Amino acid sequence: MKKVLGILGGMGPQATIDLQQKILNLTKAESDAEHLRVFIDNHPQIPDRIGAVLNNTTSPVPAMQESLNKLCTIGAECIIMPCISAHYFLKQLSIPPPVNFLDMLQISCQACSDNYANSTAGILCSEATAKSGLLDPYLKRLSIPYIYPKTEHQQLLSRLILGVKAQANLALLTADLHLIAEELQKRGADYFLLACTELPIIVQSEPLPYPYVDATKELAKAAILHCGYVLK
Amino acid sequence: MKKVLGILGGMGPQATIDLQQKILNLTKAESDAEHLRVFIDNHPQIPDRIGAVLNNTTSPVPAMQESLNKLCTIGAECIIMPCISAHYFLKQLSIPPPVNFLDMLQISCQACSDNYANSTAGILCSEATAKSGLLDPYLKRLSIPYIYPKTEHQQLLSRLILGVKAQANLALLTADLHLIAEELQKRGADYFLLACTELPIIVQSEPLPYPYVDATKELAKAAILHCGYVLK
Repeated sequence: MKKVLGILGGMGPQATIDLQQKILNLTKAESDAEHLRVFIDNHPQIPDRIGAVLNNTTSPVPAMQESLNKLCTIGAECIIMPCISAHYFLKQLSIPPPVNFLDMLQISCQACSDNYANSTAGILCSEATAKSGLLDPYLKRLSIPYIYPKTEHQQLLSRLILGVKAQANLALLTADLHLIAEELQKRGADYFLLACTELPIIVQSEPLPYPYVDATKELAKAAILHCGYVLK
Repeated sequence: MKKVLGILGGMGPQATIDLQQKILNLTKAESDAEHLRVFIDNHPQIPDRIGAVLNNTTSPVPAMQESLNKLCTIGAECIIMPCISAHYFLKQLSIPPPVNFLDMLQISCQACSDNYANSTAGILCSEATAKSGLLDPYLKRLSIPYIYPKTEHQQLLSRLILGVKAQANLALLTADLHLIAEELQKRGADYFLLACTELPIIVQSEPLPYPYVDATKELAKAAILHCGYVLK
């Protein structure tokens, strides 16, 4: 039985398109009709998640709930949210049964465990995700060893994420991403978890020369399977 | 006053993503919140438009109307439909006022007139669009001289369109597109109208070495302006 997917998007808008493209690319299909039906609310006016986590600025929860309700109203049966930091607010969202929500954090950490058991993950994420320790319980539950960038590199990473949102030159951002990754490698990272949906966009133009887990790609694969379609 | 955009999509799903990417790329914005809010129904199960026009197969109208209703229900104030052939059925759709529908045919023909007045357009479109003469009244109204590919090239073009939908190697499709374009040039085409939303996807990887109007890009620009945002 096929399910209709809903994407609670806009956080950011480019990441929402990246997720759709990955779903399309990873679905086994020879014609239009074999692809997933997807409702998307690309809602970039949802208040800044990072500010809300770190500095208690306007809560994004009412706007996120509004989007979620709209997707469910028109028939979405499974919801995904291409923004890791936004999952900080997941427990405050009301998801009407029998709608399923696929947790991007659980899915991407599971991919780390499946692909790189016992290796150390370098976590590349927003400052909000790092400082709030949002991913830590997921990583610990799966016994995944992990390290975060040092403070000044975490701040650089935040600037990279804002750079993607401002549509900066991706090639320039790649150099900084390498700098951060290499420092993590020196401290023992065996691979990287791209745990912010802006980061796979930087990697698009020039693949990272290190092993990594792309959280957006893992979410796409999980959504395809959950909705009853076949992976390519 | 900003308007919320609705995309009646899925015809095909890749073209629906291409349109979203063009809207994002062409909007003047420095942060997420300055981008359009867009509801998308990527609905690839809408029955085949080309078959319905040429061979009277299952009508796509009920499925198109269902998508349109969903988008309007959740608050879309302006609807666009990234599929030229689907506009054959536009008069059969009921669009609830005050929702606006931006007609992609009118917008792309106007772009031809604005950019290439008195020059001859080579029309690259689906067999359904060509045989039904769907674009002809728009082109005639603007006094645009135009020619279509010869019969066997029109059939080749149909295979290219299906190739995009089947995610074939785009570089291979480009060679055939050049063949068709060059024959049209010999017969007097000064520029091309890419009047099928699968064709700009072929051109993505390697820009056409001829002047052309990309109907998807023109629709993106019109939607940005209509919704009260600024072009980059």
